Amino acid sequence: MNIEINLLNKFFRIIGENMDFKIINNGVISPKGFMANGYRNGKYGVGIIYSKRDCIAAGTFTTNKVVAHPVKLSKEILKKNRDNIRAIVVNSGNANCFTKDGYNDGKEMIKKTAEFLNIPEDSVLVASTGVIGRKMPMDIITQGIEKTHNMLKKEGNNNNFANSILTTDRFPKTIAIEFQVNGKKVRIGATAKGAGMIAPNMLHATMLSFITTDIEINPNDLKNSLQKSVDISFNNTIVDGDTSTNDTVFILANGESGIKYEECSNLFDKALAHICRELSKMIVMDGEGSKKIMEVLVKGCTSKEDAIKASKSVVRSLLVKTALYGEDPNWGRIAAAVGYSGADMDMGTMDIIISDYRREVYLVKGGNPIDNEADEDFKLARDIMKGDKIKITIDLKKGNYENIAYGCDLGHDYVKLNSEYTT
Amino acid sequence: MNIEINLLNKFFRIIGENMDFKIINNGVISPKGFMANGYRNGKYGVGIIYSKRDCIAAGTFTTNKVVAHPVKLSKEILKKNRDNIRAIVVNSGNANCFTKDGYNDGKEMIKKTAEFLNIPEDSVLVASTGVIGRKMPMDIITQGIEKTHNMLKKEGNNNNFANSILTTDRFPKTIAIEFQVNGKKVRIGATAKGAGMIAPNMLHATMLSFITTDIEINPNDLKNSLQKSVDISFNNTIVDGDTSTNDTVFILANGESGIKYEECSNLFDKALAHICRELSKMIVMDGEGSKKIMEVLVKGCTSKEDAIKASKSVVRSLLVKTALYGEDPNWGRIAAAVGYSGADMDMGTMDIIISDYRREVYLVKGGNPIDNEADEDFKLARDIMKGDKIKITIDLKKGNYENIAYGCDLGHDYVKLNSEYTT
Repeated sequence: MNIEINLLNKFFRIIGENMDFKIINNGVISPKGFMANGYRNGKYGVGIIYSKRDCIAAGTFTTNKVVAHPVKLSKEILKKNRDNIRAIVVNSGNANCFTKDGYNDGKEMIKKTAEFLNIPEDSVLVASTGVIGRKMPMDIITQGIEKTHNMLKKEGNNNNFANSILTTDRFPKTIAIEFQVNGKKVRIGATAKGAGMIAPNMLHATMLSFITTDIEINPNDLKNSLQKSVDISFNNTIVDGDTSTNDTVFILANGESGIKYEECSNLFDKALAHICRELSKMIVMDGEGSKKIMEVLVKGCTSKEDAIKASKSVVRSLLVKTALYGEDPNWGRIAAAVGYSGADMDMGTMDIIISDYRREVYLVKGGNPIDNEADEDFKLARDIMKGDKIKITIDLKKGNYENIAYGCDLGHDYVKLNSEYTT
Repeated sequence: MNIEINLLNKFFRIIGENMDFKIINNGVISPKGFMANGYRNGKYGVGIIYSKRDCIAAGTFTTNKVVAHPVKLSKEILKKNRDNIRAIVVNSGNANCFTKDGYNDGKEMIKKTAEFLNIPEDSVLVASTGVIGRKMPMDIITQGIEKTHNMLKKEGNNNNFANSILTTDRFPKTIAIEFQVNGKKVRIGATAKGAGMIAPNMLHATMLSFITTDIEINPNDLKNSLQKSVDISFNNTIVDGDTSTNDTVFILANGESGIKYEECSNLFDKALAHICRELSKMIVMDGEGSKKIMEVLVKGCTSKEDAIKASKSVVRSLLVKTALYGEDPNWGRIAAAVGYSGADMDMGTMDIIISDYRREVYLVKGGNPIDNEADEDFKLARDIMKGDKIKITIDLKKGNYENIAYGCDLGHDYVKLNSEYTT
């Protein structure tokens, strides 16, 4: 665990950007008026986020046509009610997807949570993560809701919540930030889970992520700000290229800060984007079995769509992922992945640069490759590839669009996890 | 080696179809008038196919925009001359792609081959396979051409040729068939290589494959027959989802059988399709590090495009591939891969059936899943997954289109090969 956390800190310190806000503790319970707790029972966990007053809510969901029951239920609730949300209940260990009684089981989770918290049923959102196609163990889940509620009555505990939603994750993923507007503090807190089955569709889908904030905001502004943030973060994150049936991002805003969105919309948007991007990096860092991460910038594209295609093609390529694992500066695999992405390109003009954020080397410059392993630059490239975090820059020199995608290596632990564990 | 060959034989015996033609020996040299030989020097190999008289030729090539020099050169030659082809020269160990002097190096291979064989330069096609972006070791290649030519003068040897073109392949891939028309024999022989970087684009691309035939045929018929065969075979074959920069299929027809294509066009098309499909199966069977193969039939689709999308999405899914490796009947991963493929579907009506070609079991029937691991059918499914070759059938019940894709598992050996070997 320590290794990963250190890696994570290094990663953030180096590629984090200058910020107008400060990092604070306590994740989803750092904004005023939010409580959360969670309980684990072996492979199953239950977590609850609760707001003392009504929240404006927004969500983005998977685009997979095989869709889990909690996604269906939460979409139905948000369609009717996005102004009076009070709680989110989450379980891990079972995705409640493609199950015979799944819809009723999801409804039962909502009903129990509403009863314990003494709030309306249509004020509770629900999410699940775990194995697909297995009947929900409702006795364990219901017991988990009761135990979590009993703890929640006494105190909020972000760590318990963050741990309760994990599956194959190696570490909890949580972040919170604070910024000042007219002398008052605004906070955004978040917790995510996700380690495998990750390749959110670029339009609407993500992994499980829960965000709370005490800003005062209307539903449309909240939805727009969330969608923009998700597009540049979770939707550019690939672990294995499989888009889940359960991907969900929820954001709840309770207005407790006394600051309106209109007073700080740019700053809020920027802060929310930062939150989502940092969670995305934590997710690739925790990519199942991964030891190294890559940030892939493709620039000089003739359209944004091409930049997305090309950057995601590189982070998805098994050959690039295994080269990263093998610490091999095999730029031919990178070039090939851009070449088959469908993006408009010309191999005669492209640049390929790799960097460990301290040093960088051109492997291809203006279409001119290093094709001799004895070259000094090739040796430097080998050395750079030994790093934990690699930045790959591809400049196609065709236009002005760019995109960044995040990915990780693929090693023996990925195979071990996914062949031995039923997700 | 014996294990793979046995596996291959079992696979063919069981899922092979009834044939109007017989399997014969000697691959590319079985049709009348063709010679071939090859020479290996460590990781490098050179192979030559030679025809005593002029051939009609056709080719299909990678759609990757990063394209190897031999592909460019062969396209140029076929554009000018598809009626008088006499030879193909191939090297393994270096892809001659994205190399500074690669175009001239490819031309030099052609020139040397033409000189030794005493034939025109524009009658020689060229192909390469191996690492991208490394200067060609032209001294070794030129020596290989000379040695191969010296052997070729004495005798043809299909095994030498088949071995000379391999890279990470575990076994050579060769097949030949014969059928009778009006009392005369027509033969088609073929040899392929391919074990990784395999996900041919559905329009024009494949791995390295060389086909010879003694039928008499015009260039357009030959091209059309080849394209149809490639579409239903190589273009539905995925090992790792990376489309190569060097994919090439060549077919040469020298007319020596005395039989015209017009006399047997249906039978010839069927025979060529069979050849391509069997080579495709050999390629997935030899998928880097793979131990098991899957045949994925998606039917009941509203369009052919949807059927292709859905079937290829399943064979490409890392989660399905690792479940196959782990012998886990994790049908949720299969359903999810169909769900995110983009194909028109409704999870409420779909069937998912797995089979080991002896027994079959419905894991989902009419949208109704087996969601209880204690179910007898679930136990049968576990047993079926222990087989070497698994057939997965998905019926979407929306329309009348279907497609079959071929894939393999992803295990530790894939990671080992691709992280330790520079391809």
